[in-house]
Amino acid sequence: MNGKLITFEGSEGAGKTTALNEIIKKIKPQLGNQLMTTREPGGNIISEEIRNIIMDSKNDSMDAKTEALLFAAARRQHLIEEVIPALDAGKLVLCDRYVESSVAYQGAARGIGEQAIWDLNQFATNGLKPDLTIYFDVPIEVGLNRIMQHRTNEINRLDKEHHDFYVKVHDAYEKMAKEHPDQIVKIDASQPIDQVVADVLKLIKSRVPEYFN
Amino acid sequence: MNGKLITFEGSEGAGKTTALNEIIKKIKPQLGNQLMTTREPGGNIISEEIRNIIMDSKNDSMDAKTEALLFAAARRQHLIEEVIPALDAGKLVLCDRYVESSVAYQGAARGIGEQAIWDLNQFATNGLKPDLTIYFDVPIEVGLNRIMQHRTNEINRLDKEHHDFYVKVHDAYEKMAKEHPDQIVKIDASQPIDQVVADVLKLIKSRVPEYFN
Repeated sequence: MNGKLITFEGSEGAGKTTALNEIIKKIKPQLGNQLMTTREPGGNIISEEIRNIIMDSKNDSMDAKTEALLFAAARRQHLIEEVIPALDAGKLVLCDRYVESSVAYQGAARGIGEQAIWDLNQFATNGLKPDLTIYFDVPIEVGLNRIMQHRTNEINRLDKEHHDFYVKVHDAYEKMAKEHPDQIVKIDASQPIDQVVADVLKLIKSRVPEYFN
Repeated sequence: MNGKLITFEGSEGAGKTTALNEIIKKIKPQLGNQLMTTREPGGNIISEEIRNIIMDSKNDSMDAKTEALLFAAARRQHLIEEVIPALDAGKLVLCDRYVESSVAYQGAARGIGEQAIWDLNQFATNGLKPDLTIYFDVPIEVGLNRIMQHRTNEINRLDKEHHDFYVKVHDAYEKMAKEHPDQIVKIDASQPIDQVVADVLKLIKSRVPEYFN
């Protein structure tokens, strides 16, 4: 695998998806086919079917470990069908969410335990780690306010979770960023979006300069 | 949990489901509501949806680890919604397939590795072990012939697997039976069905006599 994998992480409302879309616009003209952008569960049929089960608001009897296993299954298939072939082809892969999301959401917030989720995802990913994880950090109240403003028409099962849940997610990301400083780099996502995008672009170009020469 | 869990295991074509149905007929009149019979993925909506993804013959790009994660997810939800409540109510639970199926099929036959599948299912089941596992053993050619005779109208993705696959499943079950003789008891399922049913009934009554007093 000659490519590079950069993942985008953060709580709901951190603005990472908005920023990612802006970044794609800016770098796609230069990188062309060398750039692949994706988000879990990706565009493959199996992972999308798995995601539909997870997100179906009717499935509110779903156990936290069932959910963690389904996320790991969708992640596995997305890696096999999409991410690894792109890395094998030497591409720069930008992926919206990866293992760290499961550690924060299922491991910390849903109480399964962070190490158990790391172990589960070690199985699912064969230990494939991102070359860089960009963590979009916002104060918890800012993130929650953004969700309230932008998502009034979109309610899924995960969005029903309460304030404490978001605090646990936030704290888990903070902990991971401290423990893996070489991999996980924090971006102040409470800044205006233009500044966030500029910071992320600068970070990416410094970490994988070979794609921007 | 005051109940008892007895699982039925074996290769396709071992006749365990046929035997299980006969056994239910014989003991249901005596046990009534104290008996729960189930098979993975059980009757809950989430596990059935997961099973549909696994069994869909269109999904032939499914990675072996994705499959293992999906089986573990369906197992988890089946345990939480159906098996554990029945055990908590003191019932005798007879379950067609459990963790050992995943060890044989995904661990051994698909080559993921048996220990990795044990570890994954330790996560999914919180280590819940059957009080007894009845292993329906038939010579590999007998099992394959039975499949050919009975399943001409039913083809799913798993049935497409080849002869070597069944040999690996068979060998994995033999190995587990040797390693866990207190839990896994072998039944000679190449006998006439009446004799198989009689053997299984005798075994069950000797292991959980409290349900038959």
